[in-house]
Amino acid sequence: MDSCVIPLRHGGLSLVQTTDFFYPLVEDPYMMGRIACANVLSDLYAMGITECDNMLMLLSVSQKMNDKDRERVMPLMIKGFRDAAEEGGTSVTGGQTVVNPWIIIGGVATVVCQPNDFIMPDSAVPGDVLVLTKPLGTQVAVNAHQWLDMPDKWNKIKLVVTRDEVEQAYQEAMFNMATLNRTAAALMHTFNAHAATDITGFGILGHARNLARQQRSDVAFVIHNLPIIAKMTAISKACGNRFGLLQGTSSETSGGLLICLPREQAARFCAEMKSCRLGAGGQLGQEGGTGEGQQAWIIGIVEKGNRCARIIDKPRIIEVPPRGSISGIQEGNNSSTNNTNAPSPSEIQSGGVN
Amino acid sequence: MDSCVIPLRHGGLSLVQTTDFFYPLVEDPYMMGRIACANVLSDLYAMGITECDNMLMLLSVSQKMNDKDRERVMPLMIKGFRDAAEEGGTSVTGGQTVVNPWIIIGGVATVVCQPNDFIMPDSAVPGDVLVLTKPLGTQVAVNAHQWLDMPDKWNKIKLVVTRDEVEQAYQEAMFNMATLNRTAAALMHTFNAHAATDITGFGILGHARNLARQQRSDVAFVIHNLPIIAKMTAISKACGNRFGLLQGTSSETSGGLLICLPREQAARFCAEMKSCRLGAGGQLGQEGGTGEGQQAWIIGIVEKGNRCARIIDKPRIIEVPPRGSISGIQEGNNSSTNNTNAPSPSEIQSGGVN
Repeated sequence: MDSCVIPLRHGGLSLVQTTDFFYPLVEDPYMMGRIACANVLSDLYAMGITECDNMLMLLSVSQKMNDKDRERVMPLMIKGFRDAAEEGGTSVTGGQTVVNPWIIIGGVATVVCQPNDFIMPDSAVPGDVLVLTKPLGTQVAVNAHQWLDMPDKWNKIKLVVTRDEVEQAYQEAMFNMATLNRTAAALMHTFNAHAATDITGFGILGHARNLARQQRSDVAFVIHNLPIIAKMTAISKACGNRFGLLQGTSSETSGGLLICLPREQAARFCAEMKSCRLGAGGQLGQEGGTGEGQQAWIIGIVEKGNRCARIIDKPRIIEVPPRGSISGIQEGNNSSTNNTNAPSPSEIQSGGVN
Repeated sequence: MDSCVIPLRHGGLSLVQTTDFFYPLVEDPYMMGRIACANVLSDLYAMGITECDNMLMLLSVSQKMNDKDRERVMPLMIKGFRDAAEEGGTSVTGGQTVVNPWIIIGGVATVVCQPNDFIMPDSAVPGDVLVLTKPLGTQVAVNAHQWLDMPDKWNKIKLVVTRDEVEQAYQEAMFNMATLNRTAAALMHTFNAHAATDITGFGILGHARNLARQQRSDVAFVIHNLPIIAKMTAISKACGNRFGLLQGTSSETSGGLLICLPREQAARFCAEMKSCRLGAGGQLGQEGGTGEGQQAWIIGIVEKGNRCARIIDKPRIIEVPPRGSISGIQEGNNSSTNNTNAPSPSEIQSGGVN
């Protein structure tokens, strides 16, 4: 599971907690702090938990930074982390800081829950559909952005992508990574989610497999659609698929939730994701279609099977355009013009399932 | 405070948690794991908390280790951490592992408490005495041990210490660092402790100052005695006091608790420390004087003052002999032959206080 759940000695309560720490992957220290916090909280959100009682911050300052850089960078990173915690309705009350060759940022998220507060990720049944709440491709976007300044690397991809497109994809990835999965966690309760996990280091397929293994029913997760940040598929192919993006093994950082939902609920879940944001107290509220909500996609189905997961041959690639841009591009063996909307379960069926 | 205390939304309960991580400082990976765990739990014990509901482990594997070394070292370190957690009546249910230039080991300890389970460290009053539950000098011992193989360093101290004495001091330091402060935490309740902290990176004086600052009454902590692992004082002096050992600023790792106790309770606290160990369920039990208990020392007094702490001029140095050895050596402006027993408050008084 993404978090550990410990029965407490008091009143049927459970302690749920998780920790994560890693190394900076974006250049903006403030956004890096937000991403680290979103990444820690995501493990709680994957269990449908919308509240967090306490956070600790884990930090290392690089011994290679001079005093001026430290004073410029570290407070911004800490502020980003704290701001994201506040957005999650919690706060950072402690932690530990050390010196290390590398900068480290991470944290611990802890909540004491009543039984109804969390959704054990083990109840998927055949007929469910799989929903993903953020596009894939963060690793490719971050790498491509670094390659802008590395001519030998850039030369390999410059025929398939412009500098501007890389910059836009990087911004999009950064924005997505810094977005909390809290709305999705709240909607998991509204729409009776059966199981969920968050997508991080093992990629969409790795985490789908982990989740499938934990199910009580004999199920298989079959992924048909891969929503991917625009142009990242082309870059991945130009690099000889070294990221494993289309194979579902490309690492993601602070990725979306992969959620098993009853088939009849999934389209409404996606619609609500698009129009809802959590209020200050963690309540769901409409925002009147301001478009500030998040995109979510139905990406696959749950079949009877041996607690495994796979991506179909030639999955449909949904090119997810950066915010503000109008059109997307679609590749693969299917075509559709409504690529910024969630395909309905019947669309998946028509895509050659079973 | 050593841990953060968060009021929960449920039934008057509080969430208490702490995190610590650092770098290996002893060569034995199993003992290093135990020390890391003891160091994390110590922050709970300093608040008189004897139970821990959950632990997470934070780990980084060094990128400079080859596969063989990794497979030999890391499981031992993890086992040491887990074994110490078990001794603390808890277990490790999650965590995070990364790759880093340096090995990192640490963890998170979390407990959900009723109000009586913990002692807020703010109630010291003039007339209290200060008790310390482990000897000082771990940093000097660990460094001196490294110098055995560094001729230029060894030459500076070889006139005041033998190789055998350094080896014994190192073993003693390692044993002490790996010892849980759990018995002391339990006895804090029995003997009505007013405040406590654990001694780590800021040294005895640094942590005494931190603790003094948190007090509700106008108090000053005055330290008269420094129990120090045998021969570490001589080494420290031979190095021109570079560690700050006699000034109270030498870093300690997984040090003892510094506890403010009512004067009439302190001697009994020390006697119980010597004869007690915690049973499996965290209950205090006698062991019939097997000598397996821990030494504790009355090291100072609480006076009226400005929430500060100091060490008197020429404190009495209590040379703490390694386990198994018979005699100790004493230096400083006082002399006493019962240096392995806790001096009574009247002994401190006779040492020139007020």
